[in-house]
Amino acid sequence: MKSLERIKKQVLRVLAKDRASFWQLINYQDAHLVDFLEAIKQLLQEGKIKYEKPYFYLADEGLPIFPYESPGCLFCSPFEQNPFWKQVLKDFIEITKDRPLPTSDFDQGFIKPEDTVKRTAFIYERGDLEGTEVFILGDDDLISLSMALTKLPKRIVVVEIDERINRFIKEKANLIGYQNIEVYNYNVIEKLPAELCKKFDIFVTDPVETQKGLKLFVNRCIQSLKGEGSVGYIGFTHREASLKKWYDFQKFILDSGFVLTDILRDFTTYPEEENQWEDFYRTYRIMREFDLSMPEVDWYKSCFVRFEAVEDPKVLDIEVPADLEELYFDDESWATPLPSYLEKNRKEG
Amino acid sequence: MKSLERIKKQVLRVLAKDRASFWQLINYQDAHLVDFLEAIKQLLQEGKIKYEKPYFYLADEGLPIFPYESPGCLFCSPFEQNPFWKQVLKDFIEITKDRPLPTSDFDQGFIKPEDTVKRTAFIYERGDLEGTEVFILGDDDLISLSMALTKLPKRIVVVEIDERINRFIKEKANLIGYQNIEVYNYNVIEKLPAELCKKFDIFVTDPVETQKGLKLFVNRCIQSLKGEGSVGYIGFTHREASLKKWYDFQKFILDSGFVLTDILRDFTTYPEEENQWEDFYRTYRIMREFDLSMPEVDWYKSCFVRFEAVEDPKVLDIEVPADLEELYFDDESWATPLPSYLEKNRKEG
Repeated sequence: MKSLERIKKQVLRVLAKDRASFWQLINYQDAHLVDFLEAIKQLLQEGKIKYEKPYFYLADEGLPIFPYESPGCLFCSPFEQNPFWKQVLKDFIEITKDRPLPTSDFDQGFIKPEDTVKRTAFIYERGDLEGTEVFILGDDDLISLSMALTKLPKRIVVVEIDERINRFIKEKANLIGYQNIEVYNYNVIEKLPAELCKKFDIFVTDPVETQKGLKLFVNRCIQSLKGEGSVGYIGFTHREASLKKWYDFQKFILDSGFVLTDILRDFTTYPEEENQWEDFYRTYRIMREFDLSMPEVDWYKSCFVRFEAVEDPKVLDIEVPADLEELYFDDESWATPLPSYLEKNRKEG
Repeated sequence: MKSLERIKKQVLRVLAKDRASFWQLINYQDAHLVDFLEAIKQLLQEGKIKYEKPYFYLADEGLPIFPYESPGCLFCSPFEQNPFWKQVLKDFIEITKDRPLPTSDFDQGFIKPEDTVKRTAFIYERGDLEGTEVFILGDDDLISLSMALTKLPKRIVVVEIDERINRFIKEKANLIGYQNIEVYNYNVIEKLPAELCKKFDIFVTDPVETQKGLKLFVNRCIQSLKGEGSVGYIGFTHREASLKKWYDFQKFILDSGFVLTDILRDFTTYPEEENQWEDFYRTYRIMREFDLSMPEVDWYKSCFVRFEAVEDPKVLDIEVPADLEELYFDDESWATPLPSYLEKNRKEG
């Protein structure tokens, strides 16, 4: 999707609610003045909108445009004022009640259900959800289902290593009645299947945060994107990634042809109770480094980062981790559980 | 200021309110686990804190540490619940009532008073305000006064071209009774005076957004910084800067040795009424490109961007704008007023 198409979508969904002036409209879209005006001009030329100074209108009120639904403040009290988003959150909590619990074998852990819907809403705000083809690498957060509940994306593809999650997503997507979802069993160490390359408008992933693993996850995702104007979203922490790692990652993102557009600090929280991962702590390095009690508050948080391709993305040569230990561990992964097979190895070794 | 010093400050101010566990504390600071634990260990060694599992305490409750004041959600309803920040906002609105109005000669325009205090509070949240030396290039927003009202910085230096603003800041700082503020008359085209180089922990600037002007502003500011761990804050818009320009700027920032840590979309708004700049619209390029009404809503917004030096910053060679026209105008500056001396030239030309 070219950037201008996204802007036009942001304009149309606001006009589907009500007429608006140039200055009102500009507050609901992301482009700079030159591109915003170009989007307006194209919509006028295409006959989709009309201008009677000072207002713009939809030319045909029967157009199948989903009117803009404001999720409210995504940083403190989202969804309260909006029936559409309130319902998505309610349904999401309901259908994910019996979700698979994290296993240490895949460095899993899910964010709060509310935060998954917050991410979905932020993606929606950017014009990246409606009518788009979405690629998700790893989905223990189940954001695919949150998106499916909005019924807005054109297509959602999940690639994930954990068969339990894959079955769960398929089953619940059926229940929702959203047909355009595909789920593949996929290990990030493998090459991305050719039929998934260059097919998507956006991707979402929560990469492992080792230096090599991080780039591997994001590189696979970049391969999935169509081209200029495509967008990546990742969850990325300060808890297990130093600023040097952030720097290295940003260099990689820019070199790949993307600009960072949003960095939302600690936007999402991993709830201790729901993840039921008390047992993992036994193997966290942080617990060996200092005599610590078990946590009595949620403390693992991640930032939400968006970047947009300003040119055809470049798929850089990166170093693929030699094995699973190198994928999951480096000298900053102090709150990553030791997978059972590695624990076994270490005991034997 | 080294990053670790900032982290220790973030820890101490929370403990100055109450004892806290490791997991509670980690939510109030910005480092990754390795550095956070290192900060804790240093504070224990220095005898500033004590540990009685599971809680950390201040070792001496008489230490002159300003207890943490939470500004609340900076994205929708800041300051309401907190007397300290509420008072700063109230006082800031009061002392800036008779502020100088924007002149087109310097591409001025100020953000909402509330947004200036929001910026101040965000800087405070990051640990960048207390005890720091602050450099401000251009201050028609008067953030220096907002900072002075908190009494937290060690030193504030404003360099600004507009003598009216400089007089205003000096006068009001006297009124507040904050002594550690210095104000210099300075044109960004000139070299930064040697006595201001390598002296500051953070800088704040709202650069002009032309490709050359943007880098010139930020480059001067980078020269003012002490070294690794120093921090830059800028206001930067999507209204007059395309994503290509953002990309180019981010490359420049990374090449200068900084990592981007926060990008807060449309964090601040320029109020139409208070700026009284109706007359400027006459010369905006956007008004010539399309038959537009005058705005009936606030629409000019800017993002707040933070970046931190992960190494000793490099001062890159940049192209200095040849003249004021090149400083203020490029093909994306569609809402920048024509300064009177240029307007005169154009009429004569």
